[in-house]
Amino acid sequence: MSQALDLLRDLIRCKSVTPANDGALEILQDFLTPLGFECHMLTFEGDGSYPVQNLFATRGTGGRHLLFAGHTDVVPVGDEAAWTHDPFSADELDGVMWGRGAVDMKSGVAAFCAALPELVESGEADKGTISLLITGDEESDAVNGTVKALQWAKEQGYQFDFGLVGEPSSAEEFGDVVKIGRRGSLSFTITVTGTQGHVAYPHKANNPLPVLSKIAAQLSDATLDEGNENFQATNLELTTIDVGNKAGNVIPARGSMHGNIRFNDIWDAFKLEYWLGQQILAVPANGCDVELKIHHPVSRSFVSNDSADVDLLIETVQKHANITPIRSTGGGTSDARFIADYCPVAEFGLVGKGMHQVDEQVPMAMVERLQSVYTDYVRAFLES
Amino acid sequence: MSQALDLLRDLIRCKSVTPANDGALEILQDFLTPLGFECHMLTFEGDGSYPVQNLFATRGTGGRHLLFAGHTDVVPVGDEAAWTHDPFSADELDGVMWGRGAVDMKSGVAAFCAALPELVESGEADKGTISLLITGDEESDAVNGTVKALQWAKEQGYQFDFGLVGEPSSAEEFGDVVKIGRRGSLSFTITVTGTQGHVAYPHKANNPLPVLSKIAAQLSDATLDEGNENFQATNLELTTIDVGNKAGNVIPARGSMHGNIRFNDIWDAFKLEYWLGQQILAVPANGCDVELKIHHPVSRSFVSNDSADVDLLIETVQKHANITPIRSTGGGTSDARFIADYCPVAEFGLVGKGMHQVDEQVPMAMVERLQSVYTDYVRAFLES
Repeated sequence: MSQALDLLRDLIRCKSVTPANDGALEILQDFLTPLGFECHMLTFEGDGSYPVQNLFATRGTGGRHLLFAGHTDVVPVGDEAAWTHDPFSADELDGVMWGRGAVDMKSGVAAFCAALPELVESGEADKGTISLLITGDEESDAVNGTVKALQWAKEQGYQFDFGLVGEPSSAEEFGDVVKIGRRGSLSFTITVTGTQGHVAYPHKANNPLPVLSKIAAQLSDATLDEGNENFQATNLELTTIDVGNKAGNVIPARGSMHGNIRFNDIWDAFKLEYWLGQQILAVPANGCDVELKIHHPVSRSFVSNDSADVDLLIETVQKHANITPIRSTGGGTSDARFIADYCPVAEFGLVGKGMHQVDEQVPMAMVERLQSVYTDYVRAFLES
Repeated sequence: MSQALDLLRDLIRCKSVTPANDGALEILQDFLTPLGFECHMLTFEGDGSYPVQNLFATRGTGGRHLLFAGHTDVVPVGDEAAWTHDPFSADELDGVMWGRGAVDMKSGVAAFCAALPELVESGEADKGTISLLITGDEESDAVNGTVKALQWAKEQGYQFDFGLVGEPSSAEEFGDVVKIGRRGSLSFTITVTGTQGHVAYPHKANNPLPVLSKIAAQLSDATLDEGNENFQATNLELTTIDVGNKAGNVIPARGSMHGNIRFNDIWDAFKLEYWLGQQILAVPANGCDVELKIHHPVSRSFVSNDSADVDLLIETVQKHANITPIRSTGGGTSDARFIADYCPVAEFGLVGKGMHQVDEQVPMAMVERLQSVYTDYVRAFLES
């Protein structure tokens, strides 16, 4: 069982802060190739982002096709002096391994890879097709990563029956959460333009801030829905309101607000744009010009609750955990949203606590436990 | 009657952009001294502002005491290339004199000074006391100008019966407006502090922007009063709302708004602070911390409508104008607010159009007409 930790140690020692790879994907390639995987190093670039290296590894041509997705890039170390151990040392102490990416998510990648030799040696892996899509950019732009690799795979004729993302999905203890979907995310800007003037002569001006603040209040008070069996309620947060007028005796010409909506499967981008328009129209414009801008691309919501493969994942996790996992669609976005365009997808991995923080660390026994879940799940998936 | 224009020409040629004097006050000293005025050049400094030169000139020791107030400083020329004539040339063309300060308010100072020789020669000036307070900083900080000169005069034992400010009070045509008071001005800042967080986890944060925007909407909708016989309604304008959050997925910790209230004599700083507090309390704080800060000093409102000297001024203006002047308390603030702490005060001068703008210019006949009003008014005032 120490292959997972050997791999994790090697991966943590790669300084793969997005978009650097520093040999991380080559470590995986060297591990997977002897197991019979056909490895494709895919470098994508352009579309306003930096070039990114990705690995697509695939084994088998028949049976059911499982796609495992993950990433080897990590967020910056932050205040390096605040780390107890060098963030790229993979130091071990009292059963814990330190390092940036120990949780998010070099351990998930290492555990899945380490789950494979047993299945290959036993011949169980031959019952179907196993692919891994490991990107070098999940943490930042995500423009030249998973999206383009999936497009490439489609062009090569690959079709997947189910996607398993190894992101740290557990909340408080190992196995408590399997993510079966994610809310969508839409960002918008509303700009209100009036007429500039002097505060002593308001009749010669038209202050846009009353309209701006009333629209902000309207949006803050609005309820989009109450949620449903799979999703919590859609939520809107205003993230900033800015005018930037330094002159205390001047009525400004213009102000704007930005907001973000995390929405469930009741909504899509078109419905939300219409809804935002209705909220704006509910506030008298008082002669001001009000402009709504939706920031594209909008991440759609998705849910894979109806998939038997999700039920199987839940069952498998439960066998190895001390708890019944809940099916969650909460939290932030991940690359699972891109995979959802191709096949049902779920996320299961370690406890996410400590990710992106100083002294990121993982209990080594938990990595081995994750490997066991992945081994059992791949076995059951290929037999189902 | 050309003394007013001679003086105005000399004054415009002084590049007295605040706080520069460039010889402007010395021109007045040289003009007034031969008329029997005792001239005090007063330079004040400190209190966080630059040093400013001021002139206090006084003639007589008995009878009624008239204070004329004005300023020789001017605002910057702005886009100098856009001027048809050099802004410090005092060029004359078709009965018009060009120059920065031609309207605001070197012409008012020149007209008042030029009104005096006739009254001195005739002995009419001996019936009372005439003082001039000409500051070198009305347009900018106004910290080391009229306020301190009035304090100095009080300490010297001077007491005034009435103040006449020579600011351009007329709106559309000569004599249409006499300003008998001004609204007060109070500026404030309201800061709302919640708890920062991620838009995907709003339950772990407390967004201050709903509360901020509702307070802004509350203030925008509020009516303070309907005005009264002397004043228009008190008016509140929000001048800016700022959060400065660049991260579209982050709920901000804090936001703030600034506003300004132009208020009539129904209100004072204490009443307004209480009123603002009530408006804030009308919006549920939702666990946020809401802070109200009043910017001091607050300019109080004042009105001199009950003064017989104001009636006399109105009568005098009417004789020289083609219109009955209205008694106004509108518009921005002026140094009259400081004089109001010592005696009744009114403002009468040229048409204010074009002040602070490129190609500021004055019809020369209007300056002479203003001189006639001032001569008649001083005569009538000293006899009353």
